[in-house]
Amino acid sequence: MLVDAIRIAHGHTMEAMTTEPSNQTSLSLTMGDPLGIGPEVLIKALADPERRERGRFVIYGMGGAMALAAERAGIEPFWSRVPRSSEAATSDEANRANVLLLDYDPVDRGESWSLDMPSVGRATKSGGLSSFMFVEDAIADAAKGLLERGPFIDGIVTAPISKLAWNMAGKGKYPGHTELFSTRLNAKRSRMMFHAPQLRVALATAHIPLMDVRNVLTIGRVFDTIDLAHETLIEQGLASPRIAVCGLNPHAGEGGTMGDEEERLVTPAIDLAQQAGINATGPFPADTIFNAAVQGKYDLVVAMYHDQGLIPVKLLAFEHAVNYTAGLPIVRTSPDHGTAYDIAGANKAHAGSMGAAIDLALTLAQSRAKARHSA
Amino acid sequence: MLVDAIRIAHGHTMEAMTTEPSNQTSLSLTMGDPLGIGPEVLIKALADPERRERGRFVIYGMGGAMALAAERAGIEPFWSRVPRSSEAATSDEANRANVLLLDYDPVDRGESWSLDMPSVGRATKSGGLSSFMFVEDAIADAAKGLLERGPFIDGIVTAPISKLAWNMAGKGKYPGHTELFSTRLNAKRSRMMFHAPQLRVALATAHIPLMDVRNVLTIGRVFDTIDLAHETLIEQGLASPRIAVCGLNPHAGEGGTMGDEEERLVTPAIDLAQQAGINATGPFPADTIFNAAVQGKYDLVVAMYHDQGLIPVKLLAFEHAVNYTAGLPIVRTSPDHGTAYDIAGANKAHAGSMGAAIDLALTLAQSRAKARHSA
Repeated sequence: MLVDAIRIAHGHTMEAMTTEPSNQTSLSLTMGDPLGIGPEVLIKALADPERRERGRFVIYGMGGAMALAAERAGIEPFWSRVPRSSEAATSDEANRANVLLLDYDPVDRGESWSLDMPSVGRATKSGGLSSFMFVEDAIADAAKGLLERGPFIDGIVTAPISKLAWNMAGKGKYPGHTELFSTRLNAKRSRMMFHAPQLRVALATAHIPLMDVRNVLTIGRVFDTIDLAHETLIEQGLASPRIAVCGLNPHAGEGGTMGDEEERLVTPAIDLAQQAGINATGPFPADTIFNAAVQGKYDLVVAMYHDQGLIPVKLLAFEHAVNYTAGLPIVRTSPDHGTAYDIAGANKAHAGSMGAAIDLALTLAQSRAKARHSA
Repeated sequence: MLVDAIRIAHGHTMEAMTTEPSNQTSLSLTMGDPLGIGPEVLIKALADPERRERGRFVIYGMGGAMALAAERAGIEPFWSRVPRSSEAATSDEANRANVLLLDYDPVDRGESWSLDMPSVGRATKSGGLSSFMFVEDAIADAAKGLLERGPFIDGIVTAPISKLAWNMAGKGKYPGHTELFSTRLNAKRSRMMFHAPQLRVALATAHIPLMDVRNVLTIGRVFDTIDLAHETLIEQGLASPRIAVCGLNPHAGEGGTMGDEEERLVTPAIDLAQQAGINATGPFPADTIFNAAVQGKYDLVVAMYHDQGLIPVKLLAFEHAVNYTAGLPIVRTSPDHGTAYDIAGANKAHAGSMGAAIDLALTLAQSRAKARHSA
């Protein structure tokens, strides 16, 4: 099985398989929807030479979109470009480039699309197909690396896609990136996490109907979320992370008088985590615990469902947080904003969230590499 | 039936039943748990002479607790005191006092309790019994006023009680003030609302297990919440309130792919509200709509459940919001903080939330009185 092989290979080092052994962190960056602000925020975030020095970057995207965004932003191209489909894409020279663009610009693909303004700024089948392809290929290349069949890739940073465009392209079965990564890499324990400047949050459940939470919330699911969050914080360099766990019900069930999930599921999961040496406490009422975390009493809050965790994240750091997928065999982050079609191509996008997503991916990847090398 | 009589009497004016006809707004203030910060925040909020000029105030509470809090805060007593049980409590002289304290200090009641420090700052049966009695009596007096059997009371402002103390006193069947008011005044449409400086929120459901929301959320319940919120905003003086309505599910159900409550319940309720001339829109994803409201795009957000509405309120205005019960035949507000036993008696409490609760009650009561007089 590919998946078991990936698991076995997960702990291996990359020295054996690259032509030029290197400790340099290698990140793949997917452009997202080329008709959104993905190209622009990628270019702006990587225009920082200090950031580029921290790793090696391979962009999966459209050369034309990159060139246009760079021109409009007044940024000199800093990347090497090779057509994705050419043999040059895997040459030693390409492997040595600090920033390599794997160019998907359509040649004999039967696709017709344009970066002219009438096309930029809306969901299209072409945008959906291409943005899906970037991610599929980036994951496949990373999987090859895990299996030692290609260069080792430490992590993937994804620029925003449009779910509508994915639907138009017939790829609607995935609610988003997170589910695609989890499925392709068979990471059943994977969880969505959000890192805002003031607050970190991990979600026990995410893209399901709220009333279905009762069908999927188990002691194991809550424990896994605490455990993955703890692992991530350790990778970020926190010595003894303090994790607060929300209850599911108002007032965390008020001693069992408003729901029993706290007693049945959350408290046992916290007990298990404590037995595993994790500094997790709760269950706390969700309406007050985020204040405590923002005030510095906790390093992360585990939320039971999507809105419980994302309302505070988006209120505090609207579109400036970083989305992190914990529990994958590779690091994966993304900015917490959408394609922003309304300002696509207008050189108005802020790259702060994309920059933070790249920085977090570099930090986590370097921490994992260190652990691998010392293992 | 008392209740039907209350409904009938709701629109009447007070002129006929007071010895001294007056347009002055009359608020009852309940002290809450005398061993918490209730006495202190009441005194501090009413110490403002401009606030006292806006109405007439009757405090239901303990004289000893009032005196002690005033002494520690260095505030000269500004109230008239009469024992609750005496005939003087209903005398013309008492009715003329700007601030009247109906004193419950225990005499021949078989209760033993003390305001000395060992007792202050914890939940007790005495604290529970007395704080429950203040509210029961204030509601009963207001009901008499509605029935024209006593002075008309425009509204009640409640200082915080301890649910633990209510439990110890055998009054645990009410989750809190809101439910007690709704039951006693048979107000089936009543809803919890929160007014923070940056954000107003109304809750379609409140103190029930989260997974039970599916059993109580109906088109009518969502519509009533929108309607009551609209009415309240009109009473606050907004000409054409803009109301945003949350979805129940992540991303407001993402077009029906993550739950169908938006299509089945929320959208039909919004349609009904629009047909009734209310500027209500949605359903919106809950994780982003609060930003829009804070930025001034909406005057109020209708949340589907407790934490969906209270996470943003408490994050933005921790313990500084005002809790308002919409849909009662009288105005009822309270500060959005608890008994704060840990600082009770220490003269450390901030009265900002209590002051805002009194101010909002005055504004809403004056608006209702104006509507009554012009009807």
